[in-house]
Amino acid sequence: MKDFQRELEEYREIIDKSLNAVSKTVKPGTIFEPVKYALESQGKRLRPILLVLVGKGFGADFEKLIPAATAIEILHTFTLVHDDIMDNDSFRRGRETIHKKWDINTAILTGDALMSLAFRELVKTQVEARHTLVEELSDAMLEICDGQKMDMEFENRVNVTRDEYLRMIEKKTGRLISVSCKIGGMIASAGDDKIKSLETFGKLLGVAFQIQDDLLEMISSEQKMGKSLKSDLKSGKKTFLVVDYLEGLEPCEKEDFMQFLISNADNKELIVEKFSERGTIDRTVHEIRKILEEAKREIANFPGDLKEKLHDFIDYISNRQS
Amino acid sequence: MKDFQRELEEYREIIDKSLNAVSKTVKPGTIFEPVKYALESQGKRLRPILLVLVGKGFGADFEKLIPAATAIEILHTFTLVHDDIMDNDSFRRGRETIHKKWDINTAILTGDALMSLAFRELVKTQVEARHTLVEELSDAMLEICDGQKMDMEFENRVNVTRDEYLRMIEKKTGRLISVSCKIGGMIASAGDDKIKSLETFGKLLGVAFQIQDDLLEMISSEQKMGKSLKSDLKSGKKTFLVVDYLEGLEPCEKEDFMQFLISNADNKELIVEKFSERGTIDRTVHEIRKILEEAKREIANFPGDLKEKLHDFIDYISNRQS
Repeated sequence: MKDFQRELEEYREIIDKSLNAVSKTVKPGTIFEPVKYALESQGKRLRPILLVLVGKGFGADFEKLIPAATAIEILHTFTLVHDDIMDNDSFRRGRETIHKKWDINTAILTGDALMSLAFRELVKTQVEARHTLVEELSDAMLEICDGQKMDMEFENRVNVTRDEYLRMIEKKTGRLISVSCKIGGMIASAGDDKIKSLETFGKLLGVAFQIQDDLLEMISSEQKMGKSLKSDLKSGKKTFLVVDYLEGLEPCEKEDFMQFLISNADNKELIVEKFSERGTIDRTVHEIRKILEEAKREIANFPGDLKEKLHDFIDYISNRQS
Repeated sequence: MKDFQRELEEYREIIDKSLNAVSKTVKPGTIFEPVKYALESQGKRLRPILLVLVGKGFGADFEKLIPAATAIEILHTFTLVHDDIMDNDSFRRGRETIHKKWDINTAILTGDALMSLAFRELVKTQVEARHTLVEELSDAMLEICDGQKMDMEFENRVNVTRDEYLRMIEKKTGRLISVSCKIGGMIASAGDDKIKSLETFGKLLGVAFQIQDDLLEMISSEQKMGKSLKSDLKSGKKTFLVVDYLEGLEPCEKEDFMQFLISNADNKELIVEKFSERGTIDRTVHEIRKILEEAKREIANFPGDLKEKLHDFIDYISNRQS
């Protein structure tokens, strides 16, 4: 596991360098500073690392994977910039969000510039069918937008079912992680069957990751998470925990519970206690574990080395505290 | 000229059909309706038509040009959706803007989805170096974002110079028209010299088009223009006319004039009268003519047929009333 963490660290550094190189290609202008600010933000780089792990595992050269890995991280950064506007979050990756540091219009334009840069970076990939990569990323983008819209619509509803929630995060979080794995496999010419499995594996990983994020947002500190947490409670966002808890309530109790979350957004201990009493925390942990097991089954017939690394990756993200 | 208008009409219909086909590829979902609404909006389709005219003029098959032409129009539509949020305009292409009909967050996501669709469409182009088209469009996008940001920043300044204004519209409007011409030339393999000329020609055409738009916004009706006009005056937007008029004033008079525009946004006749008295309208008309002459010189050594069509195109847009 230590070797694996060193490997991740190595990839992360290379991706950071690549992101910096992209920010240098942006011509000085009024949009330059916020774009640079966004590209220089520190992140876990989970999506590009996953793309690299998968691509290398199926035999692609590391170098060949960097443009696509960089593109994926830029696209992820873009989604954060626009999502933060919509969710009115003021804190992200340990720094002020762009719409807080500048203004909303600047943040809209910065996001737009980032998406455009992502496609520019993606087509640098040295494979013949570069256009299929663009198609994949574009299809993913549409679903991600759809997922974000569902997420916002759920804020105004108290009867969101577990299935609806899962469909939403499959789009919003699962889709980009899924396409990261898929593109890694495509660049490595892993073959149709394996690419299909990669897609499913990535989707499951993304869903588990999101549910774990929902959990960490309740039991971790803002400082550790590097982003605003209260605003989710105040806006009525439906996390796995909230949906699970709501499912156990009578229809007439649901509104009251949402009010309780809003009023007690500053007192997370109290909310966690309530969740615990009804078994929500346990069910959440169980759900994450179940989905990750399913993800492991999906890659059961992958080459041994890659399988081991992906298992390490799962352990790595399951054990994260932020 | 009648034949030419028939030709434009034919292209417009084909581009409209292609846009409709794109909207059918978007999977039903929460973002589907506004994306469809945006793609179905009626526009002049000047940019894709220009791409087609240029591409055909340099020998490319019509069919081969359609994906890129469609991509350009989708990208243009995307800029309108996001610009309308920033400018808080409620009326566009004769209909409610997306952020008015839905809400701001939906409009942000719809724009994002459209940009992503534009790149997807672009890579359908059947040329070997498709990735260079993506690079061109992405580079253009960055400058367009930059131009939009400059435009907004100018709203809060009274000392914007004519040069600054021209640089802003070169980015905001000129760049997309320039890249439309360039991509048409690239798909037709027109050769480096011609492609360079196309780029300059498009930029000049775009600048002239924007100044004419500034003029029409003052002397045409909202109904004809199909978009909100008052909001530009109220927000302090710097059009060619405003910048020209401000240049003739003493520093201490400038703020008062901007206040005058805001207070009289409903009385355009009065404003136009003021502009006329100081020769602003004449200078604006002269500037448009001058730039269009420069554009014509840029294509002086183009094949005769194409040159004639581009001259017709210039006449067509110079004579427009909306």
